[in-house]
Amino acid sequence: MIGIAVKSLKEAISYYEDILGLKCYAVEEVRDQKVKTAFFKVGQTKIELLESTADDGSIAKFIYKHGEGIHHLAFATNNIEAGLKEVSGKGIRLIDRIPRKGADGLDIAFLHPKSTFGVLTELCEKKK
Amino acid sequence: MIGIAVKSLKEAISYYEDILGLKCYAVEEVRDQKVKTAFFKVGQTKIELLESTADDGSIAKFIYKHGEGIHHLAFATNNIEAGLKEVSGKGIRLIDRIPRKGADGLDIAFLHPKSTFGVLTELCEKKK
Repeated sequence: MIGIAVKSLKEAISYYEDILGLKCYAVEEVRDQKVKTAFFKVGQTKIELLESTADDGSIAKFIYKHGEGIHHLAFATNNIEAGLKEVSGKGIRLIDRIPRKGADGLDIAFLHPKSTFGVLTELCEKKK
Repeated sequence: MIGIAVKSLKEAISYYEDILGLKCYAVEEVRDQKVKTAFFKVGQTKIELLESTADDGSIAKFIYKHGEGIHHLAFATNNIEAGLKEVSGKGIRLIDRIPRKGADGLDIAFLHPKSTFGVLTELCEKKK
């Protein structure tokens, strides 16, 4: 999944639908993360637009610092706890040692971009 | 496709293979664009790592300005000329009015991030 920080979900959804021809199939608010999200699918990959719902949210801070743009990449795993343990054991710095709740019913955890060649990288798992 | 600017293709390939468990299936130099590229596949989506081969290349300049990280998103189209005409007609600013040769045997053209909510966006077509 590709997470993209935008100022206005409404305007960005128009662009992804009208210009790129994708179809927004879900809009969801994740209060914990202070974001509203919109989901698109290209092949097996999801694009998730992220609009901040609060000035002190991580997406608002990202846009303030970098402007709108790609925020993170997420990779699905079958066992997020084992995945975090494995990559940590290989020397990767973690932002989240313990998974937290993300959008789309996922458990998520971020690896630190200092360890991942500048790409904020998320592991995620759809728990049954 | 997700294009990611890196300083060292070799080190980044190790990370994507050993940590994320992906498999690099091709390495290619694109002289026109002053880059060496490495390709990975996740589902139907390609990840392309980009290392500059010259100090004045666009990837070298990107890293100098932003550091390593995600450089662009590319979307496949069946007719890149028609695609460019269509999005341009809808008011999207183009970097390339005429497609040029990219890696992986593709014709490519970039839309301007000012028109695409901060995401440098490429249209690409595999010409027969």
